[in-house]
Amino acid sequence: MRIAIDAMGGDNAPDQIIAGALESIEFLAEEDQLILVGPEEIIEPRLPSPKSRGSAITVVHAPDRIAMGEPPVESLRKKPKSSIPTIAKLAKRGHADAVISAGNTGACVAAFQMRMRNLPGLNRPGIAVVFPTFEGPVTICDVGANIACKPINLYQYGVMASLYARHLLGIDNPRIGLMSIGAEDAKGNEVVKKTRELMKSDTNLNFVGNIEGRDIFKGVCDVAVCEGFVGNVILKLTEGLVDGLFKAIKHELLEEKLRLAMKFKPVMTRIYKKYDYNEYGGALLLGVNGTAIICHGSSTARTIRNAILASKKFSTEKINDKIVEYLAQTPVGAANGQAD
Amino acid sequence: MRIAIDAMGGDNAPDQIIAGALESIEFLAEEDQLILVGPEEIIEPRLPSPKSRGSAITVVHAPDRIAMGEPPVESLRKKPKSSIPTIAKLAKRGHADAVISAGNTGACVAAFQMRMRNLPGLNRPGIAVVFPTFEGPVTICDVGANIACKPINLYQYGVMASLYARHLLGIDNPRIGLMSIGAEDAKGNEVVKKTRELMKSDTNLNFVGNIEGRDIFKGVCDVAVCEGFVGNVILKLTEGLVDGLFKAIKHELLEEKLRLAMKFKPVMTRIYKKYDYNEYGGALLLGVNGTAIICHGSSTARTIRNAILASKKFSTEKINDKIVEYLAQTPVGAANGQAD
Repeated sequence: MRIAIDAMGGDNAPDQIIAGALESIEFLAEEDQLILVGPEEIIEPRLPSPKSRGSAITVVHAPDRIAMGEPPVESLRKKPKSSIPTIAKLAKRGHADAVISAGNTGACVAAFQMRMRNLPGLNRPGIAVVFPTFEGPVTICDVGANIACKPINLYQYGVMASLYARHLLGIDNPRIGLMSIGAEDAKGNEVVKKTRELMKSDTNLNFVGNIEGRDIFKGVCDVAVCEGFVGNVILKLTEGLVDGLFKAIKHELLEEKLRLAMKFKPVMTRIYKKYDYNEYGGALLLGVNGTAIICHGSSTARTIRNAILASKKFSTEKINDKIVEYLAQTPVGAANGQAD
Repeated sequence: MRIAIDAMGGDNAPDQIIAGALESIEFLAEEDQLILVGPEEIIEPRLPSPKSRGSAITVVHAPDRIAMGEPPVESLRKKPKSSIPTIAKLAKRGHADAVISAGNTGACVAAFQMRMRNLPGLNRPGIAVVFPTFEGPVTICDVGANIACKPINLYQYGVMASLYARHLLGIDNPRIGLMSIGAEDAKGNEVVKKTRELMKSDTNLNFVGNIEGRDIFKGVCDVAVCEGFVGNVILKLTEGLVDGLFKAIKHELLEEKLRLAMKFKPVMTRIYKKYDYNEYGGALLLGVNGTAIICHGSSTARTIRNAILASKKFSTEKINDKIVEYLAQTPVGAANGQAD
C-alpha cells in the first residue's frame, strides 16, 4: 500500500509529521510505502539516509504550501504545486492508495473531492470523526464537508459511518442516531424528517431514531448522523468546552491548594489521553474512491502515526468495497441511480 | 408586577416550584404579586394560610397538566385547561406581566407565541440562554424557538440578545458573534452569509464576525447568534458533555484513590455551582410582548426563585421598550415593515 502524506500540513509541520511517518514504519508491512510530499530541501535533511530507508519512504517534491487560514478553493487555484493538491493528484493518477494531511481542512476536502472520484452509488462524501466518550466511541458524520445536505446524503452518511464503526472500531451492529432537537418523530426540520423516513425504510440499518445533543455522551448510539454545519459546530464546541472546563478545574484547584492541584494533574492527563481523539488519527473523508484522512491542525507525531495505521486498516478491511456493495443492494433513494 | 408561574411544570413540580416562589418573595416589592397556576387542591395545601400570605400570592385553578414528552401543539389543543395555556392566557388578557414555566418547552414556546403578540417590528421570537463560561457569561439566541431562520430573524436575535446582555448582565457594548464553521467571510451557509451582511450594515451593533463552536468558551464574544436547530444542539450537547466529563473524572479518581476523590469533591461542587445555568433562572423567550421565561425541566427551587427575580429585572429594566425602540430606528430589513 502506498500512503501519500502532506509533510507541510498543520501547526507542527514538518517535524512532527515526518516523525509520525517514521514511527509508523515498524507497524507496516514490507511492501507498504510512505510518500512524503513537500519541499525536498525541507524533507530530505529530516529523513534517514536513502540507503537506510530503502523503499519504505520516498519523497515527492511540492515547493509550495497552503497556509491554515487561506481560502480553500482560491488557494488551490493559486498554488497548484503545494502539498495538498499534489497528494490529491497522486491519488487521482493511481500513484497513492491513501492520502493524509493535517493542513487546511477546507483545501483538503475540496482537493480530495475534486481529484478522487466518489464511490459508485455515493452522492456526496462526508467527514467522519470518532468521539471517544465515557460510554465508548461515537462516530459522527458529517462534520463539515457538506453544509447543504439532502436526506439521501444523510442516509448515506449513516450507511458509511455504520460500516466504518463496525469494521474499524469493531462495534457489532452499530446503533445509528439522527441528530435532531427532540426524540419524537415530529421534531426536527424538513431534512431531518425526510431522512428519518429513509433510515426507517432500510431495515438493514440499526436505526435508533432521533437523538439530541446530550445523547452523544450517553451511550445511546454508536453513530450520529448530522449535516455538516451542525456537525462542525458539535466538533469545535466539544473541543472548546473540554479545554474550558479543564482550565476552570485547574484554576479552581490552584485557588484551593497547590498540593491538591499537583495530585490531580496525573489524573487529568490520563483522562485527556483516554478521551483524546488523536488516538483515532484524524477524520476520514468517507465516500471518495480511495482513503483520505484529514488530521487536526494541532496533530503531533502520534496523531500522524495513528492516521497512517488507520488508513492501512481502512484499506485492509476493504471498507470502500463494503460501502459500494451496500449501496448497490439498498432499495433506498439515489443509491439506485436516482438524482441527488 | 404580576408574575404567573406554572406550578406543575418540570420534574420537580409542584414542591420545588412552589418553594422557589415562596423563597423569592423576600426579594420582591410590596406591590408584586405571584400567581400560582395549577390544580387548586394540589397548590393550596402547600401554601401558607391565606391570611399570612396576603396579596403576595394568589392561585389560579388549572385542573389539567401537559406532560414533558407530549407533542406540544396537539397537547395544547387537547388540554386547554392545563397550566401552560392558562398562564399564556393570563398574559394575553393583561392579568399577568410575566409568565414562567419549567414544563414542556415546546408547549411553552407555542403557547406563549400564540397568546402573547410579538413586539412591534419584531418578526419571530427567539429563546436566549446564558452560558456561564470561564471567560464570563455568553448569551446564545436562538436555542430552539425557530428552526427555519431567515437572515432578518438572526439579525434581530443579535439585537435582542445584545440589549439583554447589556441591561440584564451589565455587559457594556456586548460583542456579537455569528455562529458559523469558520471565521472567514466566505464560510457558512447562505443564511449565515446574508445575516453577516445585515449585521455588518448596522454600525450600532458591536458585531465581531463569524465565530466557531469553540469560541463560545474563549471569551471572544458576549452574544452568540445561531438558528434554533444549531442552538438547541449546542445547548444539549454542552449539558451532556459536562455531565459526561464529570462522570469520567469521578470514575478516574475512584480508580485512583478514594481519598483523592473525596478531596476533589468540594472542588467539583464549587465548579458546578459557578458554571450552573440555574443561576440565571432559565431561558427568555425574547420578542414576545411581555416577559416569558422557560426553565429547564430539572429546575429546583433556586432556579424558579432566580427566574422570578430575572423576570422582575427584565421588566424593571424595560428591555422590551429598548428592543422596540432599537428596531424602530434601525435601517435594517423587516424592522421597517419589510416582509419576514
